[in-house]
Amino acid sequence: MTAVPPEIDTPDILVDRDILERNIARMAEAVAAKGLALRPHAKTHKIPEIADLQLAAGAGGLTVATIGEAEVFAERGVADLFIAYPLWVGPREAERLRRLSGTARIAVGTDSAEGALQMGASLGDAAAGIEVLVEIDSGHHRSGVAPGQAVGVARAAAEAGLSVAGVFTFPGHSYAPGMPAEAAAQEQRALAEAAERLAQAGFEVTRVSGGSTPSALLTEPGDTTEVRPGVYVFGDAQQLELGRCAPEEIALTVAATVVSRHEGSEEIPRRIVLDAGSKVLGGDRPAWTTGFGRLLDLPDARITALSEHHATVVVPDGDPLPALGERVRVVPNHVCVAVNLVDDVAVVRGGEVVGRWKVAARGRNR
Amino acid sequence: MTAVPPEIDTPDILVDRDILERNIARMAEAVAAKGLALRPHAKTHKIPEIADLQLAAGAGGLTVATIGEAEVFAERGVADLFIAYPLWVGPREAERLRRLSGTARIAVGTDSAEGALQMGASLGDAAAGIEVLVEIDSGHHRSGVAPGQAVGVARAAAEAGLSVAGVFTFPGHSYAPGMPAEAAAQEQRALAEAAERLAQAGFEVTRVSGGSTPSALLTEPGDTTEVRPGVYVFGDAQQLELGRCAPEEIALTVAATVVSRHEGSEEIPRRIVLDAGSKVLGGDRPAWTTGFGRLLDLPDARITALSEHHATVVVPDGDPLPALGERVRVVPNHVCVAVNLVDDVAVVRGGEVVGRWKVAARGRNR
Repeated sequence: MTAVPPEIDTPDILVDRDILERNIARMAEAVAAKGLALRPHAKTHKIPEIADLQLAAGAGGLTVATIGEAEVFAERGVADLFIAYPLWVGPREAERLRRLSGTARIAVGTDSAEGALQMGASLGDAAAGIEVLVEIDSGHHRSGVAPGQAVGVARAAAEAGLSVAGVFTFPGHSYAPGMPAEAAAQEQRALAEAAERLAQAGFEVTRVSGGSTPSALLTEPGDTTEVRPGVYVFGDAQQLELGRCAPEEIALTVAATVVSRHEGSEEIPRRIVLDAGSKVLGGDRPAWTTGFGRLLDLPDARITALSEHHATVVVPDGDPLPALGERVRVVPNHVCVAVNLVDDVAVVRGGEVVGRWKVAARGRNR
Repeated sequence: MTAVPPEIDTPDILVDRDILERNIARMAEAVAAKGLALRPHAKTHKIPEIADLQLAAGAGGLTVATIGEAEVFAERGVADLFIAYPLWVGPREAERLRRLSGTARIAVGTDSAEGALQMGASLGDAAAGIEVLVEIDSGHHRSGVAPGQAVGVARAAAEAGLSVAGVFTFPGHSYAPGMPAEAAAQEQRALAEAAERLAQAGFEVTRVSGGSTPSALLTEPGDTTEVRPGVYVFGDAQQLELGRCAPEEIALTVAATVVSRHEGSEEIPRRIVLDAGSKVLGGDRPAWTTGFGRLLDLPDARITALSEHHATVVVPDGDPLPALGERVRVVPNHVCVAVNLVDDVAVVRGGEVVGRWKVAARGRNR
């Protein structure tokens, strides 16, 4: 991608189709070479056209985070969906899962006997048509049980009439410098132990699912059967800073205009202000990141503050201070939350806008 | 507001109409008692029905952040709008401003001679119909010029054919513990100096505009003519922690369900996980806040981590650990970004859902 195309009003989200397709192909090939199945997490893009590209490149199905996201992709014709989340299923959620399982293979997560029993009771006769994967805590300490507790949860799920298929984990602690390799190793140990215990308890374990974008390519086959990376389709500033993607692999940028410009003084920093704030970039800023995102063409500049409609960019003395009205491309810290802030994105190829894609699953939080 | 009404699926945003109306009345009365005009910032709520309530309570007009937000509220019939932002106006933005000025009194911000000249050139004959306020940096060091530079910007605006009406500032540095009073004082000194210099240079200064929610009630009339608080309609966890609102003044909460529950151990915290993550709460977490939001009914619990669809809530040993499936109400850190994540909100009165309001200006980033 070169400059911001002239027909774009800022702020807007640009997706470079050539880079996107390369990212999709590269992950598909690398995962296939390991003999693993690829089940990309669609919460990153929420865009049916991108799901089509992932499936065409060899993904066997998709991962989603909510029933609402599953409904959007099932409507697109995706036949195999995993809601990788410990759902609490009441009567209304059960009715939606029942409808979904009429058109697609549906798996869901659970991490408690109570949750599994509640789900089974709400689903009634439809329970047998839903596969369940027990969520394992591999070190992130969010949801999930220790590997030693997996059998108890699986037994409750079976008792509730659900089809126990295996285990999954999300190694969220891989999102920190120096952590991807260690987190990937912990992930595989935890999954292997949980899968083994389930098998010893008599369960037929067909799915052992792991892998974030930082750890996916570090996963060795062994017990793991599939990985669920999401961010790899676009890349973002977090992945750049973790060394998990290169600047030329960034497929999504936010087009922004310089609206304020200040040479600065001893007390006040030399800076520009862009019209892209947290309402288009997202506000995520883990402590280990160096700012709220990056400028693609000014790698040493840092977004030091973000308001809803302002990004304050401090530019080092050695770099030129962009002019008022200049249009720049910003790499968000966390691309999943940026995409979720817009109704559609501009698709760009060779610097030209070739169309717009609707973010069809935007805001499908439930 | 009491429990989450049974017809609500989680996560969802609930607005308590009685508390909302009290907040609107209280700010209107307090600002009127000081002899100031109230121009609430509508980027907080983005909801036409709430704008109607603010105007009915005595607000003379609204503040917005973008041309797109102005379009939504002009369509609702709001006759006086201030786009408090240093707009960079090209031909397409000029056409939209021209149309807006046909139905409402429109003011915009500027903080550079270049920006003012560009705006005037793009607007052509329509420039005289647009009022301009020069943005002043009162200590936040985002956009805005020092008071001593205001005359240069105002002269460029006048030369470009725009109607110079006064000055404005946003004391964003009021959002930190112990800062509201100091920021309010700096704000008033900066506005007074800039207004005085403009008057000395021969400009008729009719609008001197300041005031965030933390500083609005600390503003003394003097030179300032109007204040632009936004968050006061709902309150949020930031305002709670700054001591600028009380728990019973919180009008907006996110209804969430406990989906995962862990008694913890010596190494792993005692916690619950809620189905409300950064895609409904927003990811804002300034360094001075104690977490990513608060639980209204568990004031000592803290949201220590936020993923897109998970809030990890650490609960102190002395407090009961909420049960799986229990529904709780979360106070977001920064309410403006939470509202911008949903298509509509549930309106609740006396614990009953009485309707839904569309977030009509959601995502209007440009």
